[in-house]
Amino acid sequence: MTALVPSPVRIIGTGLIGGSLGLALVRAGVDVQVEDASPGTAALAVELGVGELPGEDAPDPALVLVAAPPDVAAMLVDRALRSWPRALVADVASVKSTVLDGLRARARAEDLPRYIGAHPMAGREVSGVIAARADLFQGRPFVIVPHADTDPRALGVLRGLAAEIGSVATTLDAPSHDIAVAHVSHVPQVLSSLLAATLIDPDEAALGLAGQGLRDTTRIADSDPRLWVEILGANAGAVSEVLGGVRERLEEVMAALETLQGDPDPGTGSRRALADLVATGNRGVRRIPGKHGGATDAWSVVVVLLPDRPGELARLLTDIGQIGVNLEDLRLEHELGRGVGLAHVSIDAAREDLLTRELADRGWKVADA
Amino acid sequence: MTALVPSPVRIIGTGLIGGSLGLALVRAGVDVQVEDASPGTAALAVELGVGELPGEDAPDPALVLVAAPPDVAAMLVDRALRSWPRALVADVASVKSTVLDGLRARARAEDLPRYIGAHPMAGREVSGVIAARADLFQGRPFVIVPHADTDPRALGVLRGLAAEIGSVATTLDAPSHDIAVAHVSHVPQVLSSLLAATLIDPDEAALGLAGQGLRDTTRIADSDPRLWVEILGANAGAVSEVLGGVRERLEEVMAALETLQGDPDPGTGSRRALADLVATGNRGVRRIPGKHGGATDAWSVVVVLLPDRPGELARLLTDIGQIGVNLEDLRLEHELGRGVGLAHVSIDAAREDLLTRELADRGWKVADA
Repeated sequence: MTALVPSPVRIIGTGLIGGSLGLALVRAGVDVQVEDASPGTAALAVELGVGELPGEDAPDPALVLVAAPPDVAAMLVDRALRSWPRALVADVASVKSTVLDGLRARARAEDLPRYIGAHPMAGREVSGVIAARADLFQGRPFVIVPHADTDPRALGVLRGLAAEIGSVATTLDAPSHDIAVAHVSHVPQVLSSLLAATLIDPDEAALGLAGQGLRDTTRIADSDPRLWVEILGANAGAVSEVLGGVRERLEEVMAALETLQGDPDPGTGSRRALADLVATGNRGVRRIPGKHGGATDAWSVVVVLLPDRPGELARLLTDIGQIGVNLEDLRLEHELGRGVGLAHVSIDAAREDLLTRELADRGWKVADA
Repeated sequence: MTALVPSPVRIIGTGLIGGSLGLALVRAGVDVQVEDASPGTAALAVELGVGELPGEDAPDPALVLVAAPPDVAAMLVDRALRSWPRALVADVASVKSTVLDGLRARARAEDLPRYIGAHPMAGREVSGVIAARADLFQGRPFVIVPHADTDPRALGVLRGLAAEIGSVATTLDAPSHDIAVAHVSHVPQVLSSLLAATLIDPDEAALGLAGQGLRDTTRIADSDPRLWVEILGANAGAVSEVLGGVRERLEEVMAALETLQGDPDPGTGSRRALADLVATGNRGVRRIPGKHGGATDAWSVVVVLLPDRPGELARLLTDIGQIGVNLEDLRLEHELGRGVGLAHVSIDAAREDLLTRELADRGWKVADA
């Protein structure tokens, strides 16, 4: 059915990530077998179309994907390597060094070349197979994490898997992966949770003043504690290192605030510490690729001026449909005071020129994004 | 022209906030006079429609709005109180206790009843009059901050002003206001900047893994350092107090991570500290009013199931237009794996029942938000 991924694929652990991998692979025509520590979860996964329960006489898997928390992934990978001596085995846990270390401690040396780590980078605040989506990985990074003994063939198979589910493959070794995700995912989670934890104190009148800034900075704080205990525990070293820098800078900021509190004009040192904080943050945030939050590399954003009259947005979307371009996302910015709005239209990057030209031909004003 | 706000209004300081107030008031038919420490900025403000430069024979203002940083606001308010002995004078700085304290230290006692504090809560990452928008305050909180000697008439005038610019007025005393904004605005800014500051270290490959979580949590880190030095300095006491709690919890988290790093299974204490962090954050974030980020109290969100076919969104928006309901915001959630999408339609809360009923009549499936 497909040339990119060998069949059958066995998915072990049908939560959000395992379930979404199954949906994407089934849609691509791959034979998917599912198993889960909970038979109820496995049955639900089958019902949702994630794959089939393997019978007694099911063929051995060619590729096994272990989608389990980091603390049990090494054990499950080892079991799979021993059970199916010809299969490639990958885990998709979000921390890689602890899985590799655990595996080196328990696996037979001759099995190790068939193991490769992977981390399809996607997630939602909701969890479980019920939240699984076939397009969860579309346009998202897929980190392939080989180790010194990995069979090069495994690298090719995972590249094919990444392409099949619409992800963008990149390769990192385990320590580099773990420090990278500490930076882009684990430390942001800790700081968002720390911030949200301060909100249990203020009264309702205070919270009524909350704006979009607070909502954005705390959105990911609404995450599963059990999942994050496993992730933070498994990546404790890298997370600690980055948090050490945060603590140091926080001490500086608090010292500056204390000085300013006693004396509103204590010379420039205290003010400079605060300005440094914000200015360094400016430099950091500008290093994040992609200037429009929602867009990945595979998308472009076309900004169209929208006269502030009823029906203009519907007319724009009708035109986009007639041009034959698929709308991936849409964000509206009102500038009512100026009598116009801006529609930020996210589309496949390859169609940007076409859409821009055709919209201009139809009289729309297309702005520089 | 308008019954809600006395004319003329003098706006002192034409940055983002002063400029936006001017645009909104001019649109409401109020005579607006502008002045700014920089003549070039004032001239630009006039060109953008914020108001007029007062000539020699201009009438005295009935209301003065001082839109300047907290460190100069008290001085400018005092000057206005002395210059126009019949005018009400309000400042719109984002910290209130330092302005009030500064004013009590310098103003004549008989002038104080004509002063009242205000804080229209809105902002953008961009600053300056060029970013000003007449609708900046629409649907946003407008905190009125009277002091013990404030003339009750001033309270009524500011309520009228809030209504005129489309804001939702609430009243708080200065210390309550300052602790509230420390929680919902100043501490989020510090933590977002601390997080963004960690991003100057990792290499580009690591930053390429950034997802929406990192983008959301660092969006407000792209703010003006000069502005934030003034705000944090002026609210140093309240910000320090909240940050003290953050530091304490950060110490606990780092101790737990250190223990887990040495010993992946050190009993439950360390894991419990991490679970507590995330679970407390869950409780905090759920206290923020309005479960859909973009919506204020004045808006409702209606969620409509969208068959995954071209043209469905355009058809939905055409129907909404025909029903006669104004679309305030629109967010799309794709669930392509399931063959449907969800359109989150933000509208005036008062029109929710109408829209829900009419959409259902036209065959749309409306979900519970």
